[in-house]
Amino acid sequence: MRKKLRQILGKRFLEAPEDLKAYSVDASPYNFLPEAVALPVNAEEIAEILRLAQQENFPVIPRGAGTATTGASLAPQGGLVLSLLRLNRIIEINQEDLVAVVEPGVFTGEFKRAVEELGLFYPPDPASYEFSTIGGNVACGAGGPKGLKYGTTKDYVLGLEAVTATGEIIFCGRRTMKGVVGYNLVHLFTGSEGTLGVITKLILKLIPKPPSQATIALWLESTEKAAQAFLEILKAGLFPSTAELLDDTTLSAVKNLLKKEIHPKAQALLLLEFDGAKKQVEEDLSEAQKTLSNFGMKLDIAVNKKERERLWQARRLISPALKKIAPGKLADDVVLPRSKLPEFLSFAKKIGEKYGLTVACFGHLGDGNIHVNILFEKEDESKAREARNEILNKVLASCGTISGEHGIGFTKKGFLPKELSPEVLLLMKKIKEVFDPQNILNPGKIF
Amino acid sequence: MRKKLRQILGKRFLEAPEDLKAYSVDASPYNFLPEAVALPVNAEEIAEILRLAQQENFPVIPRGAGTATTGASLAPQGGLVLSLLRLNRIIEINQEDLVAVVEPGVFTGEFKRAVEELGLFYPPDPASYEFSTIGGNVACGAGGPKGLKYGTTKDYVLGLEAVTATGEIIFCGRRTMKGVVGYNLVHLFTGSEGTLGVITKLILKLIPKPPSQATIALWLESTEKAAQAFLEILKAGLFPSTAELLDDTTLSAVKNLLKKEIHPKAQALLLLEFDGAKKQVEEDLSEAQKTLSNFGMKLDIAVNKKERERLWQARRLISPALKKIAPGKLADDVVLPRSKLPEFLSFAKKIGEKYGLTVACFGHLGDGNIHVNILFEKEDESKAREARNEILNKVLASCGTISGEHGIGFTKKGFLPKELSPEVLLLMKKIKEVFDPQNILNPGKIF
Ligand SMILES: Cc1cc2nc3c(=O)[nH]c(=O)nc-3n(C[C@H](O)[C@H](O)[C@H](O)COP(=O)(O)OP(=O)(O)OC[C@H]3O[C@@H](n4cnc5c(N)ncnc54)[C@H](O)[C@@H]3O)c2cc1C
Ligand SMILES: Cc1cc2nc3c(=O)[nH]c(=O)nc-3n(C[C@H](O)[C@H](O)[C@H](O)COP(=O)(O)OP(=O)(O)OC[C@H]3O[C@@H](n4cnc5c(N)ncnc54)[C@H](O)[C@@H]3O)c2cc1C
Repeated sequence: MRKKLRQILGKRFLEAPEDLKAYSVDASPYNFLPEAVALPVNAEEIAEILRLAQQENFPVIPRGAGTATTGASLAPQGGLVLSLLRLNRIIEINQEDLVAVVEPGVFTGEFKRAVEELGLFYPPDPASYEFSTIGGNVACGAGGPKGLKYGTTKDYVLGLEAVTATGEIIFCGRRTMKGVVGYNLVHLFTGSEGTLGVITKLILKLIPKPPSQATIALWLESTEKAAQAFLEILKAGLFPSTAELLDDTTLSAVKNLLKKEIHPKAQALLLLEFDGAKKQVEEDLSEAQKTLSNFGMKLDIAVNKKERERLWQARRLISPALKKIAPGKLADDVVLPRSKLPEFLSFAKKIGEKYGLTVACFGHLGDGNIHVNILFEKEDESKAREARNEILNKVLASCGTISGEHGIGFTKKGFLPKELSPEVLLLMKKIKEVFDPQNILNPGKIF
Repeated sequence: MRKKLRQILGKRFLEAPEDLKAYSVDASPYNFLPEAVALPVNAEEIAEILRLAQQENFPVIPRGAGTATTGASLAPQGGLVLSLLRLNRIIEINQEDLVAVVEPGVFTGEFKRAVEELGLFYPPDPASYEFSTIGGNVACGAGGPKGLKYGTTKDYVLGLEAVTATGEIIFCGRRTMKGVVGYNLVHLFTGSEGTLGVITKLILKLIPKPPSQATIALWLESTEKAAQAFLEILKAGLFPSTAELLDDTTLSAVKNLLKKEIHPKAQALLLLEFDGAKKQVEEDLSEAQKTLSNFGMKLDIAVNKKERERLWQARRLISPALKKIAPGKLADDVVLPRSKLPEFLSFAKKIGEKYGLTVACFGHLGDGNIHVNILFEKEDESKAREARNEILNKVLASCGTISGEHGIGFTKKGFLPKELSPEVLLLMKKIKEVFDPQNILNPGKIF
């Protein structure tokens, strides 16, 4: 096997321990040394590799930038990590068709900028967009703050080229805005975490860039109030592009990190963004101010880029701030129907109190996607797991879902039967068999 | 079989020839008498029926309002037509969650109105919305004029309950705005034309209703100019909700039907709609007028409902107008990348001239979805088929797709291998086998 892979890839076949190490981690707390790493440059090479994997029965783990939080890009069963980073061309950005053709290894931030330079817009914006790939975003169905108004990555994938486990290069979907010829394989690949095929090309939908943007930072006396304020905004018929939440725990962690008192009494922060034509944004801002006049302790507004970035500072510091609280972290990205948000946020807080653990809630309030981070010292791990269990049960009892964007990988496999019925799980497993009869593509993930 | 079905359904099992006749047609030119018709009232009854069908191996054809244009809801192999019209409750419209729960047999127009009464908006608007069902819309992945800005039916389906061919009631997807737990079965069902399962409940996404709307009717000297004018609108960064086209042939047919000279010299009509906040719409209108100043012979603007409807009159009369030209019709709803629209429209016209046939092009220019109708006298049918073949080949050579919303049914099965590779077709057939191992659900459709 190694000999043939060396023939296919030459120097782009890595076996040295120090090379393998770089591919042994993702953003989960786990690490596994793969047996080897391949750096193919095109779909044909990938097809050759997969045909070989099929013959010799070794696992192949597709990998973008390795920022998955669920172990999705790791090699717990050994095998070959297949890096897509060398397929990194932006092939086309077509201003008339409002379509882009890209290879999967393009970094999302680079792509977003290239698109915006042409006056167009690719809305999906996972917080990791500067250091994750478009292919990884599609494979995970990544979301981001703009999901409220613009949807998630999945809503921008029109067509794709993929290599199946059996080594065939297929094209699904289309280059057009719509189409209903045959089953929707594009959205089967989207979110399939590298288990159905290796994505080698993407046709993405673009939209015109909204000319104007504005940010509101509303500092509030409690987390529940923040959630209620957001519901009032929706009730008023306003449709922000973004509504991000920092709950009390998250906000105080950020304050500690910053070592300066931003709005000392505030217990929660709600960040709203509006975009569109200039007049539309002005109108939205004044409507929003009216609607929010009964909420919050202070309301900051920013329309220019620099000021807006200042308002976002607290949001961007969440990750490092929470790291300081405790070494252990159980992180979920649950989604709730919006009406259930205030109650859920109170519930999460009470669970923290019950177990004596820090539970921080933040994230994409707009589409109901709350990042629940349970932070704990080593000795409290089992308590933390119990707390998580209660929280996930509450989510499901509230008609929610246990993951809005991070997916299952292998760290959350155990929770799948909580959400999906045995019949649905069986259908999914059979679909996996259709695409990958020998289970060589990212085995042990999702199921 | 009949005995058991009578037991399950009582009077809601139809066998009388005059009853069967009503279910023997759809909007295609074909008709086939089914062997019987079932009018179940809930998912449990449907599950019982499908288990029986599995045991006794008879075809089951799910049917909404029977407005499919492709024979998708017909029974060419006999069997039982399963009407969903008795599952017709709007179960919930939730203003906080921006979510609705409906049964599949609800008429789309009725649903749209119920939603709008609450200040919300369900954008998908197939021209047939007053007389087709939500379930049929989802099963076909229906689109409509608003697709340009708002996408198609598929973009509004969050979750669904379905009965599989083996008689299991399953729930896929979710009630939340996003989610990535397991494979995306929701979008596999969407557009599957009743071949994978019977949809018995739908969770649909709603958005706030845009407060203001305006219509522009631009009368032009040629079809190509209309397509170019639309591309200029996009280039100017404007994003209409709708851009509908009537080409020269279509417009003159409508003029003949109306028997009155609307804009005598105009050879094409472009209908644009803008929606959003009042000021936004005003700004868009004035920008659009500027952009279009070099195009067209006359530009009408309407902002109130009655005036807007008047501008839409020509669009609504297309179907009856074209019927008067010739008895035969080959209708396709191809989609092209927008940049290819002007060239394609010229090409379709030339094909008409080449074969001496009337070729009318109209429809959703906005998302590139052109309805191409080849009209012919009985004796010219083979010529018409040749012409259609050339047109579909051109579409595929232009990176287009042969159906944007009407789907395949059985009338277009022959064209599937033109667009999909053998490998992709095989994957789709295997997926069909996973859901329906005995091929009892709408057999002979799509493949
Ligand atoms: C600080 C931080 C913030 C984050 N914020 C967000 C956020 O806001 N929203 C969000 O959704 N996620 C977020 N994430 C998670 C992660 O960044 C995303 O899931 C991202 O999409 C992963 O992209 P990647 O290139 O790193 O993929 P990888 O981690 O390399 O791979 C992820 C999965 O995709 C598969 N895969 C990758 N490329 C391909 C391909 N070409 N073909 C087939 N399968 C492939 C892998 O096998 C694996 O299953 C965040 C992560 C971090 C560390
Ligand atoms: C004048 C006219 C204008 C039209 N305009 C448009 C348009 O603008 N855009 C557009 O997209 N289409 C259009 N259509 C086509 C048609 O109306 C749509 O496809 C519509 O979605 C069909 O809905 P229906 O309830 O009539 O479904 P039916 O015709 O009864 O069924 C269509 C398909 O869906 C399946 N099906 C129906 N209900 C279910 C269910 N509950 N579970 C599983 N499968 C089911 C059937 O088996 C069949 O395969 C038009 C048709 C006409 C006659």
